Amino acid sequence: MYQLTARDIRRRNRFCVLQAVYAASGHTSRQQIAQATGLSFATVGNMIAELLEVGVLAELGYEAAGIGRPRAQLAINPERGRLIGVDIAETCIHVDVFDLAMTVLRSTEIPVDPAATTPDDIVESIVHGIGEVVAGDADRVLGVGLSVPGLVEPDTGTSVFSPYWHWQQVPLKVLLAPQLPYPLYLDNPLKASTAAQLWFGAGRDVDDLIVVTLRAGVGIGVVIDGLLYRGVTNSAGEWGHTNLVLDGRACPCGRNGCVEAYVSAPGITATLREIAPGSPLLASDDAATLAAVAAAACRGDSTAVAVIERTGTYLGVAIANLVNLFNPRRIVFGDLVARQLGVPLLEATRRAAAHHAMSDPFAAVTLELDPLPHNPASLGAATFALEGFLADRETFTSVSARRTRRTDAPA
Amino acid sequence: MYQLTARDIRRRNRFCVLQAVYAASGHTSRQQIAQATGLSFATVGNMIAELLEVGVLAELGYEAAGIGRPRAQLAINPERGRLIGVDIAETCIHVDVFDLAMTVLRSTEIPVDPAATTPDDIVESIVHGIGEVVAGDADRVLGVGLSVPGLVEPDTGTSVFSPYWHWQQVPLKVLLAPQLPYPLYLDNPLKASTAAQLWFGAGRDVDDLIVVTLRAGVGIGVVIDGLLYRGVTNSAGEWGHTNLVLDGRACPCGRNGCVEAYVSAPGITATLREIAPGSPLLASDDAATLAAVAAAACRGDSTAVAVIERTGTYLGVAIANLVNLFNPRRIVFGDLVARQLGVPLLEATRRAAAHHAMSDPFAAVTLELDPLPHNPASLGAATFALEGFLADRETFTSVSARRTRRTDAPA
Repeated sequence: MYQLTARDIRRRNRFCVLQAVYAASGHTSRQQIAQATGLSFATVGNMIAELLEVGVLAELGYEAAGIGRPRAQLAINPERGRLIGVDIAETCIHVDVFDLAMTVLRSTEIPVDPAATTPDDIVESIVHGIGEVVAGDADRVLGVGLSVPGLVEPDTGTSVFSPYWHWQQVPLKVLLAPQLPYPLYLDNPLKASTAAQLWFGAGRDVDDLIVVTLRAGVGIGVVIDGLLYRGVTNSAGEWGHTNLVLDGRACPCGRNGCVEAYVSAPGITATLREIAPGSPLLASDDAATLAAVAAAACRGDSTAVAVIERTGTYLGVAIANLVNLFNPRRIVFGDLVARQLGVPLLEATRRAAAHHAMSDPFAAVTLELDPLPHNPASLGAATFALEGFLADRETFTSVSARRTRRTDAPA
Repeated sequence: MYQLTARDIRRRNRFCVLQAVYAASGHTSRQQIAQATGLSFATVGNMIAELLEVGVLAELGYEAAGIGRPRAQLAINPERGRLIGVDIAETCIHVDVFDLAMTVLRSTEIPVDPAATTPDDIVESIVHGIGEVVAGDADRVLGVGLSVPGLVEPDTGTSVFSPYWHWQQVPLKVLLAPQLPYPLYLDNPLKASTAAQLWFGAGRDVDDLIVVTLRAGVGIGVVIDGLLYRGVTNSAGEWGHTNLVLDGRACPCGRNGCVEAYVSAPGITATLREIAPGSPLLASDDAATLAAVAAAACRGDSTAVAVIERTGTYLGVAIANLVNLFNPRRIVFGDLVARQLGVPLLEATRRAAAHHAMSDPFAAVTLELDPLPHNPASLGAATFALEGFLADRETFTSVSARRTRRTDAPA
């Protein structure tokens, strides 16, 4: 059984308090944080003191409360440092620089040349992309998070298997470290998108949710009791390769009938080809095809409507399975497919899921589109860097040691 | 985010220590418990002192260690009290009386008359069954656990929905309480079987496992980090009604193609009918049919072998989906179907799962048959009563308050 130490609990409480500050999006008070988190006022006071001392939070002055002492207004100190998020995707590498309030300061996209996808090629592009946007902030970077497709081992920073480029056991962190003198955090887009939702999106007011990522590949991130669930070897959430249709369509993974073969961007293109071979909606790539389907469905084009309806049926069955297994409070749909097909796909999915899911867990869950305006994989990658900074033993242990010596009471 | 209080942690540690004592099956020492649990020696000492004081543990004397002080030998005190486990199933109600070492002292089975399945009928049978076996132990019963088929609300003790008898919102605990003056704990067989494995079976040395129950209905219990995962409305694990075959066989739940329609006892009978309509293996009920299939497969009967092979393919696909989603360490198969078809079904399942699961999470998991000799639903129901007794605030708070006043150091 997993043993919780005092440090685990302290770190968890620190995350919890800071998540409440981000959720307040602006400023908040100790009282409001205590209310939002359910933590005692004393614990909140201790955590806030620590976060003020390391400069993560700032006091903005006082607001007169109706009765009693005026309340100190707290906010994230955006200037405390910079975080970098990198989303490594099939066709391009997206890099963002964030301030500590998680506002995007600068971004760039480096296209991936399909003929140059060795680990060295990709490392060169990542380093180049970061160099382009980090500008005068190079010495203020607290950490770099990277979202890497496929199976990733976060502890060692290894890309165990990447389906796009047939990578196997690539020690990406080792390759990057000499050129990027920052703490580096690696995981895949499913885990990254889920971290982004947990801190800044659909997970801010819900502790049990599933984040569905629908892009060239598909998969889920599962949040249980406010924590990202990883499984015993960090591969939980491989919903994209659960079986949807026995002996169904070929999937790039080599199996047949996987969920991914039906509800990913290429899967939806395949459905369009089945419904209307040679359709004028078929464009040069899957993203353009999705955009054409979305636009045509708006005009009431029957082929486009049928594609969305059939995709919603597939997605609804696969989502009903998740509802029955996990009994979550919320399921949020994000990334390319959700952005393009949006509400019509969500409606079709909801109808099919309502039929296939058990009524009790279905009544307990809401299905929603991703509320985040930003690329969730790069924001989530930067969130790993934020979590890493907040969990840093040296920074926080020395503060709490000093504080314990000074006083145990909250301010 | 779920907040852990000092009492939560204390209770969790208490469970953890006691699970280690049960796992030692015989006697053990503070040192061995500290090693097995990873808890500090001081924490183990405190927990043991508490458990000795309330009489759950007993000291059996000392064993000379190689070096240093002799080690006190600890064991469960079987005479501390009695626990009752009730497994309410479709055709009969099984009742066991356990001592605190979880040894079965007496058992009975009350057949369920198909014409008398109102809540009052079933309550009468339960009370009658318990009366039959409780004998002179009536005033030593610490609690009664009941495994109730279908959807159960443990907090209120309500059978929300029972597919067998078309019960809806039956307040079973309220109906039982006047006739059973004990603490009562209700949940369904999936949760009960999982609790049994967690304390006494496949979960003793593994923190992340899935317990698959295969009887007239099927479903799973998921253990994450050593705790039973319930979902937000206690209906997590409804794997039996996840979709396996799009537009497939009719399921008693009213949907089509559910896992249950293929791998439950009636599902396997249906497969036999498909492969060999009018087969002599078809018996008067599903249990007898399964026994006939098992015996025939042993003789190499081709129909029986085909039934097991096809069932294993269905089960393997459905298990591969769980491996991809949950990435557990162990999956254990129990109850009627697993008992009857055992190793041949397990082998066929493993072959299909190896093909359909992702290779990384499949390499991390073992598939096994239930190691428990006893009815897991009734043992698990009694385990709920054990957990309830161990979590009892009055018993344990008063002890820890006294102990804190006396001393903080372990013995």
